[in-house]
Amino acid sequence: MAEQLSLAAVRGALIREEDSIVFALIERARRPRNAPAYYAPAAGADDGQSLAEFFVREAEALHAKAGHYEKPEDVPFFPQDLPSPLFPTKGYPKVLHPFASSVSVNDAIWKMYFNELLPLFTVDGDDGYYAETVALDFACLKALSRRIHYGKYVAEVKFQDAPQDYSPLIHAKATDALMNLLTFKAVEEKVKKRVEKKARIFGQNVTLEDSADKNEGSADDSECKVNPKVLSELYDRWVMPLTKDVEVDYLLRRLD
Amino acid sequence: MAEQLSLAAVRGALIREEDSIVFALIERARRPRNAPAYYAPAAGADDGQSLAEFFVREAEALHAKAGHYEKPEDVPFFPQDLPSPLFPTKGYPKVLHPFASSVSVNDAIWKMYFNELLPLFTVDGDDGYYAETVALDFACLKALSRRIHYGKYVAEVKFQDAPQDYSPLIHAKATDALMNLLTFKAVEEKVKKRVEKKARIFGQNVTLEDSADKNEGSADDSECKVNPKVLSELYDRWVMPLTKDVEVDYLLRRLD
Repeated sequence: MAEQLSLAAVRGALIREEDSIVFALIERARRPRNAPAYYAPAAGADDGQSLAEFFVREAEALHAKAGHYEKPEDVPFFPQDLPSPLFPTKGYPKVLHPFASSVSVNDAIWKMYFNELLPLFTVDGDDGYYAETVALDFACLKALSRRIHYGKYVAEVKFQDAPQDYSPLIHAKATDALMNLLTFKAVEEKVKKRVEKKARIFGQNVTLEDSADKNEGSADDSECKVNPKVLSELYDRWVMPLTKDVEVDYLLRRLD
Repeated sequence: MAEQLSLAAVRGALIREEDSIVFALIERARRPRNAPAYYAPAAGADDGQSLAEFFVREAEALHAKAGHYEKPEDVPFFPQDLPSPLFPTKGYPKVLHPFASSVSVNDAIWKMYFNELLPLFTVDGDDGYYAETVALDFACLKALSRRIHYGKYVAEVKFQDAPQDYSPLIHAKATDALMNLLTFKAVEEKVKKRVEKKARIFGQNVTLEDSADKNEGSADDSECKVNPKVLSELYDRWVMPLTKDVEVDYLLRRLD
């Protein structure tokens, strides 16, 4: 188990996911809030689900038919009754404990995204582009969920590095102590600074006349397509805590 | 008709689409070519369509149910038998001639993307992430198609600015002369330079230690996630010519 795993490789993957999250948020920010996408009931549908929920459910079913959700970092928001792949899939290296696939914090991600995050980075308004809006939401949710559930690999590699530190805490179900062992404040500060910088660089309006110092972003963050501070807040309040929840959930059953 | 249209607004929209195209290509470049996604037949499917074709067809059906493909710049690759929207949609301002929705160069975009572009910006290889790969392809196709079909607005605004120049050529069906009238070499050179610069900025590996001059990209383009030269080539060989094909197709029927 886990012979391909290294902390450097896992960290590299997490850093690359940051770009995907920033891109997805920048794209969603093209559209205003578009609240009707989140409460309008389907015409003729008696279950009254919103367009957003309808779209994510159906998109996940399609992705499952195409062979997605086979890897433990790809976790559906609506795992009930997902169809089987219609096309041949290629196995992936099994580096995690077999129950890894069942570890999910997607309910918390869903609530966080729609109730907390969306108002922080979209402007109030309604331009009627609902279908496009929910497709962009799905991209954000997928990128966030994958980054956070990648915590399973982080936990595995940390466990393998120091089983003697983790095993007694796992046997004792010492959730808080495990959380402390997984927390590195200095690293977290660096991550927050980096995602903020990425939002500043990727969200700028590039013109041929740019001066060279715009790699640090515009003089004024308000010119960025997504406020860079939202990215550090997103990571501080939700992405890193939820990732550690995933890590603890994984570790608590690591010795089963 | 077209009271909301201005050349400045249309140009602004085209420039913003560049960012979406660059983001989509950078995301697709995370995965290698993954050729089996393009030739493996569906298990049990007798029509033998590839995973990519299956995915785009089904994704377009889902997006149509959500209310997409109502605006003339959003053109499906598989328009046959698209389902109707299941949710209430909001009208959009009708600024184009009514036949605008039927102008499509998606067949050419499809061939260009899979046969020409994909080998230019993905590395040869097969990592088995086929479902993710085709979802990323769909995002690229959608962004390219929207940018190119935005040419309908470009044509309309140019026609309105100078109907006396366009009308005789339209009556004479003078395709080449129309193409000349729509071609501004200096503008095209600027666009090519700008998309290349965007690829350099958005595709860099951002670290906290970056020096400030990296807004111009890495010293070495090979460190970029997509070679910036591919973007200028994409625009030079395909995006701008296909946009002008859309413009000419639109104008030829503008006086019907």
